[in-house]
Amino acid sequence: MILYPLTYERIVRRALEEDLGLAGDLTTNAIVGDDVRATARIVARAAGRIAGVEVAASAFRLLDPRLVVTVHVVDGCDVEAGSTVADVTGPARALLSAERVALNFLGHLSGIATTTRGIVEAVRGSGAHVVCTRKTTPNLRALEKHAVRMGGGMNHRFGLDDAVLVKDNHVAIAGGIGAAVSRVRVAVGHMVRVEVEVETLAQLDEVLALGVDVVLLDNMTTDELRLAVATVNGRAVTEASGGIRPDTAPAIAATGVDLLSVGWITHSAPTLDVALDVDAPPGSG
Amino acid sequence: MILYPLTYERIVRRALEEDLGLAGDLTTNAIVGDDVRATARIVARAAGRIAGVEVAASAFRLLDPRLVVTVHVVDGCDVEAGSTVADVTGPARALLSAERVALNFLGHLSGIATTTRGIVEAVRGSGAHVVCTRKTTPNLRALEKHAVRMGGGMNHRFGLDDAVLVKDNHVAIAGGIGAAVSRVRVAVGHMVRVEVEVETLAQLDEVLALGVDVVLLDNMTTDELRLAVATVNGRAVTEASGGIRPDTAPAIAATGVDLLSVGWITHSAPTLDVALDVDAPPGSG
Amino acid sequence: MILYPLTYERIVRRALEEDLGLAGDLTTNAIVGDDVRATARIVARAAGRIAGVEVAASAFRLLDPRLVVTVHVVDGCDVEAGSTVADVTGPARALLSAERVALNFLGHLSGIATTTRGIVEAVRGSGAHVVCTRKTTPNLRALEKHAVRMGGGMNHRFGLDDAVLVKDNHVAIAGGIGAAVSRVRVAVGHMVRVEVEVETLAQLDEVLALGVDVVLLDNMTTDELRLAVATVNGRAVTEASGGIRPDTAPAIAATGVDLLSVGWITHSAPTLDVALDVDAPPGSG
Amino acid sequence: MILYPLTYERIVRRALEEDLGLAGDLTTNAIVGDDVRATARIVARAAGRIAGVEVAASAFRLLDPRLVVTVHVVDGCDVEAGSTVADVTGPARALLSAERVALNFLGHLSGIATTTRGIVEAVRGSGAHVVCTRKTTPNLRALEKHAVRMGGGMNHRFGLDDAVLVKDNHVAIAGGIGAAVSRVRVAVGHMVRVEVEVETLAQLDEVLALGVDVVLLDNMTTDELRLAVATVNGRAVTEASGGIRPDTAPAIAATGVDLLSVGWITHSAPTLDVALDVDAPPGSG
Amino acid sequence: MILYPLTYERIVRRALEEDLGLAGDLTTNAIVGDDVRATARIVARAAGRIAGVEVAASAFRLLDPRLVVTVHVVDGCDVEAGSTVADVTGPARALLSAERVALNFLGHLSGIATTTRGIVEAVRGSGAHVVCTRKTTPNLRALEKHAVRMGGGMNHRFGLDDAVLVKDNHVAIAGGIGAAVSRVRVAVGHMVRVEVEVETLAQLDEVLALGVDVVLLDNMTTDELRLAVATVNGRAVTEASGGIRPDTAPAIAATGVDLLSVGWITHSAPTLDVALDVDAPPGSG
Amino acid sequence: MILYPLTYERIVRRALEEDLGLAGDLTTNAIVGDDVRATARIVARAAGRIAGVEVAASAFRLLDPRLVVTVHVVDGCDVEAGSTVADVTGPARALLSAERVALNFLGHLSGIATTTRGIVEAVRGSGAHVVCTRKTTPNLRALEKHAVRMGGGMNHRFGLDDAVLVKDNHVAIAGGIGAAVSRVRVAVGHMVRVEVEVETLAQLDEVLALGVDVVLLDNMTTDELRLAVATVNGRAVTEASGGIRPDTAPAIAATGVDLLSVGWITHSAPTLDVALDVDAPPGSG
Repeated sequence: MILYPLTYERIVRRALEEDLGLAGDLTTNAIVGDDVRATARIVARAAGRIAGVEVAASAFRLLDPRLVVTVHVVDGCDVEAGSTVADVTGPARALLSAERVALNFLGHLSGIATTTRGIVEAVRGSGAHVVCTRKTTPNLRALEKHAVRMGGGMNHRFGLDDAVLVKDNHVAIAGGIGAAVSRVRVAVGHMVRVEVEVETLAQLDEVLALGVDVVLLDNMTTDELRLAVATVNGRAVTEASGGIRPDTAPAIAATGVDLLSVGWITHSAPTLDVALDVDAPPGSG
Repeated sequence: MILYPLTYERIVRRALEEDLGLAGDLTTNAIVGDDVRATARIVARAAGRIAGVEVAASAFRLLDPRLVVTVHVVDGCDVEAGSTVADVTGPARALLSAERVALNFLGHLSGIATTTRGIVEAVRGSGAHVVCTRKTTPNLRALEKHAVRMGGGMNHRFGLDDAVLVKDNHVAIAGGIGAAVSRVRVAVGHMVRVEVEVETLAQLDEVLALGVDVVLLDNMTTDELRLAVATVNGRAVTEASGGIRPDTAPAIAATGVDLLSVGWITHSAPTLDVALDVDAPPGSG
Repeated sequence: MILYPLTYERIVRRALEEDLGLAGDLTTNAIVGDDVRATARIVARAAGRIAGVEVAASAFRLLDPRLVVTVHVVDGCDVEAGSTVADVTGPARALLSAERVALNFLGHLSGIATTTRGIVEAVRGSGAHVVCTRKTTPNLRALEKHAVRMGGGMNHRFGLDDAVLVKDNHVAIAGGIGAAVSRVRVAVGHMVRVEVEVETLAQLDEVLALGVDVVLLDNMTTDELRLAVATVNGRAVTEASGGIRPDTAPAIAATGVDLLSVGWITHSAPTLDVALDVDAPPGSG
Repeated sequence: MILYPLTYERIVRRALEEDLGLAGDLTTNAIVGDDVRATARIVARAAGRIAGVEVAASAFRLLDPRLVVTVHVVDGCDVEAGSTVADVTGPARALLSAERVALNFLGHLSGIATTTRGIVEAVRGSGAHVVCTRKTTPNLRALEKHAVRMGGGMNHRFGLDDAVLVKDNHVAIAGGIGAAVSRVRVAVGHMVRVEVEVETLAQLDEVLALGVDVVLLDNMTTDELRLAVATVNGRAVTEASGGIRPDTAPAIAATGVDLLSVGWITHSAPTLDVALDVDAPPGSG
Repeated sequence: MILYPLTYERIVRRALEEDLGLAGDLTTNAIVGDDVRATARIVARAAGRIAGVEVAASAFRLLDPRLVVTVHVVDGCDVEAGSTVADVTGPARALLSAERVALNFLGHLSGIATTTRGIVEAVRGSGAHVVCTRKTTPNLRALEKHAVRMGGGMNHRFGLDDAVLVKDNHVAIAGGIGAAVSRVRVAVGHMVRVEVEVETLAQLDEVLALGVDVVLLDNMTTDELRLAVATVNGRAVTEASGGIRPDTAPAIAATGVDLLSVGWITHSAPTLDVALDVDAPPGSG
Repeated sequence: MILYPLTYERIVRRALEEDLGLAGDLTTNAIVGDDVRATARIVARAAGRIAGVEVAASAFRLLDPRLVVTVHVVDGCDVEAGSTVADVTGPARALLSAERVALNFLGHLSGIATTTRGIVEAVRGSGAHVVCTRKTTPNLRALEKHAVRMGGGMNHRFGLDDAVLVKDNHVAIAGGIGAAVSRVRVAVGHMVRVEVEVETLAQLDEVLALGVDVVLLDNMTTDELRLAVATVNGRAVTEASGGIRPDTAPAIAATGVDLLSVGWITHSAPTLDVALDVDAPPGSG
């Protein structure tokens, strides 16, 4: 996946409007003259994995196209605490007025990338991949899915529209997992993959017989997962889900499942601490 | 503050479009007939403080006005794990298709309310209030500020436009804290409060002499805070900031500061685990 | 797929604004009094397959919620010339002012459904399905894909984002079909199907060895298609494309391909002739 | 009329978003490196009249401003099959990702221009002009009216708001054609032209006596048209309508009517076949 | 012309958002309980002509659909100072929060209607009509043109797109008034009226010979106007413009011109003083 | 306050679309060739204070980025009648088509600045400041508040969200001014100023005892105002309101109040007469 300016600039523009309101930056406009120029560095206060640096850069450029942003750390790279991620130089007013919006994007997305990296590293060597879910922040999904990728994770569905995932509520309404999957087989086009959530080995046999691409093994113990993986035996991709965290992930990955589905990397990742340091003007002291 | 449907419905509508894409809910539409009705309960899987239940309810109603949502727990109330927050009944297709969007809002906002409540309780009895910052998720600020209130916190500025906050970068560009505050005094209207970030006691004396409404005491030790509070001596509201968490909050609150500014309650609050349980249809099982 | 009012009402509202401009319906407002009521029938002037009747109905309701539309023919049904598709009754001004927008949607979408039906019937009995393409009218894709379904066709990709389709230009840039498919295999998630366009049998062998879900057989003769189907031998879904029309479709379907991809049903379908007949008021005539 | 970028860029941007969805161009981003550049030609596969080349060009530039589009055939010119309409050069990813949107606009609008040209040529020498209707694709009216002009046709009303056209439904509700036109005469401003649809010669006399600018002669035989033209005798512009196609147009034009109103050129014009050919990279092949 | 809710509700919704910002009505939400109901009257503090009462009413309903607005004075009616224009009853919070937006629309539009009425009355008996211009408030044109009608005036062009008006700058660039009008005659469709601004009697002869619908007599003395009207002698509609105010209007109208074009009624009309009086709650005193 | 292009360009773009409609500038496109260039001057026809020149300039640039606008008089400067405010040079078509939109913004905002200046000068020397209200044109508030500043006035609240103003209707519902202010004191955050409208000296004592930042003295006589100022005695900012005009302002200012609140400068300011003069092309004459 790639983030298009077409996509994120609209979101960033709205965020700038949210922060500026009708009256604009009262503080900066009172203190900083219209002709003052400044240079600042976007600095990571903590170590982590960077994501969203171009999104953050666009906040400065959209507020004032004369602001020049030089990116030093591109998305997907790790930084130490104290590292400079980017420089910004130009009109001081716009530089300060766009600061918080830029940092909110960068901190949020880098937080997701850093959290994802933590899980990915915890299962390194197991062969299992970490995938995200649709438990994302409303209206930031494309950006957050990108951050997951930058953290080394993979993307699951982007929405209800790009693949089928039959879950317990569908099964309850259909009156059985076989009925549910059969209806999907009839209705869904040739370009759509089908995943089914199973809770028991009996269900697993039933859906494998119907032919599905992926089975979601929800809230199973590691013993159950191991048995499920053996039962599937390559006939479908296997995906484990349910409360996976860095401490529980290695044992789950060791069961042989192909994928670990982790909602937590998008819905609960703490921000990465990033800040803007304005260079002292020459002669100041 | 109050959340107006005028404000949040536009955000919820966009989130529904984000999740549905062009093709809509492939899974549900394949499995669930157009005339099937269902009833479901929105359940808190963990204990916490609820916020955003009306926002979540609007997701169902906006997708299909025939869905009837009955709210059992209003914003600002605490729930035990397993509690039913609301019921939804009506066309099963729309009920399932709106589920994730509704839960994403409810979990996110209740997570903020619950996290805020944790800090508020940690400082109970100290007289200090917990306030939020502008470190919010882009384009969800009005909703997140509401969630902070529901958690027992207070709101700081909603944007750059509703009050003045002179920070270190402004001081650096102005060439001194006195110069910065003096310019603000001239420029800012009679309906605007002025807060100034100070890092030393010398700065504190300088700004108090100039007359400010609030002083932000950034990254001070508890000893420094105590001294600052004594220096201010009621001439301004005092606000402490800098890495405040539940474990450090009580000691900071005990210094006598009026306010604890905590970015963490909006930018890093984990979600509250909420889910939708569809009632089994009669005769199923 | 299902058409959500959430999706199409925004499009219909914009179309009403397009037709009304700033001054509104000069003719109707001059001639028809504010309190005049009327009843009208939406009539198919030609035989065909109906699609978009709810979209058309929404044009009336969005202009004036007091207009009551009673649908007699739902999407996916065939009508004879002269059939009444729906009745509209209520304030005469809004009824006349929304007429053209409503008919433009209904005629356009029914035209696509009718044209699709023509191809579907031409290949009936062959086992091949008719699928549409991304050659749709800008900003009407969700509606047109729905109309294809109503005509008995199936939907291919809804956009660049929901499946992979490797085409000649990708192969040219990758420097070979094998290189192109290999890169896809690495990059694409487990929920995404992969289709590859092949132009020769040699390419076909190469991509089947790499494992793809669907092969697009572009501009092949029926002999080549037959050979390709035999080569694939069930290892992938086969899809023929290239200038398929009602007269050429049966022979192509007879080659044994699974799918016929037809851009013509969306980009060149003539409208279905539909009109609005206002009932003469009592006593007139 | 002129197409302003202000008008069409918003439509093109939306069309790009429609095609890219949240995940973007999965295929291209997997296969084509971020730093690959390419050159491509937009080629007409069939002969026709070009319209919309600047609209198509904007699709490339809006997705990536580094894409350079060189237009070789401007709107209103004829091309042979195989002609290059424009070149595009720059980043290969954006070039491929914008391809379908650009071609959808160019093919659709050139199809309308080509179809219009066909009718215009069929009546050449008769003195009659071909005019379009409001039977246009929702939300593309400004673009389609432009395409009609590029095909040699003239534009009728752009909406309900820029001129009066009294039709049968208005007459039915007013209780007579004289009553309808009289009300218009009173209500409508001095800058608005008035056209009235007449179905009989008696109606024609009545409306000419009331003074109208244009008479619409709907579904008349050529004999009736000839008689109507003689009756009007220069007192109004005459416009024939009703199922006019290339084969019937010459006879109708020969009756002496001033205008032929043809809905078919916008609502049923087949697309012009246009494609994008990427130049093989140096050394490939 | 008619004002469609489709048109004005979008403008009103945006105005509510403009006034509420992110934090909403701080004052009302602090003071007025969620369950308090109130009744209020919209009162004209000065005599005038009402316009925009439905627009104002929509501000209340859009903020809270439970607010019931009863309109006592419809658009186009005159009121004495102290008259009640409408009642509003329902939740007190929304009633107070929507007050200013509702009054801003009502006062602005009624101000235009009242000012227009003043000019219309000044020329009553002369046979001349008062028409407005395109000198309207940006993005409120449809509403302001409606207010002019409610004041007894007529509408001129709604935009650059619905009629031709050749002005001095066009003539300067064309190199002469004859050249300008000739080009228009060729280019413009049969449904478009043509008006030409003339500054001398020589120009008047020239354009009448070319055939135009309306002549705009700009900044002429009453003697010149009288001569121009005699020269035109019914061959075109005559329109006077240039600094027309209530005191100068009668003399200009007496010259026999058909229309008086007055920019002042839209660009400089003072507001009509309107206010909201909340009824004292029972028992208060 | 500062006007950000981010804010006003969206408004200007919408105003251009409002004026151009679907068909664009029929007159200019018929008369002026695509390759004609022109130079024009924006001229003040009357003396006044300029505001909005950058907003006006953006109208030209947004319609055609090749138009070069050179500003000679920046916002906040005074001009004599006949002064050139800015030059515009470039493609003649876009120059003429953007003219009216540009002038509508410039005339409206300069009208507000000029009117504000009139009041400001009338009270010069008194020490009182002129402040505006929320009685602004819907959706132009940020621009109009800027114009007030350019006229030498100060801004009051930008919306309901940035400060508290307790008015008579709040007091009526709360059941007393003390109850109203007490509720505000509890509910409102530390960054929000509180103003209270008082009508009697008794109320004044009550609210001063409760501690408020500003008192609004509504519709008091100059004697009452003088007494109120003496009563307040520096404990709060004093603001007079109610029908203040240039003729009444000096006496009110002489009472010693700090602020004069004048709705009239935004809701009833007449436009400043500005025009566009196209330079005659070389050789024309």
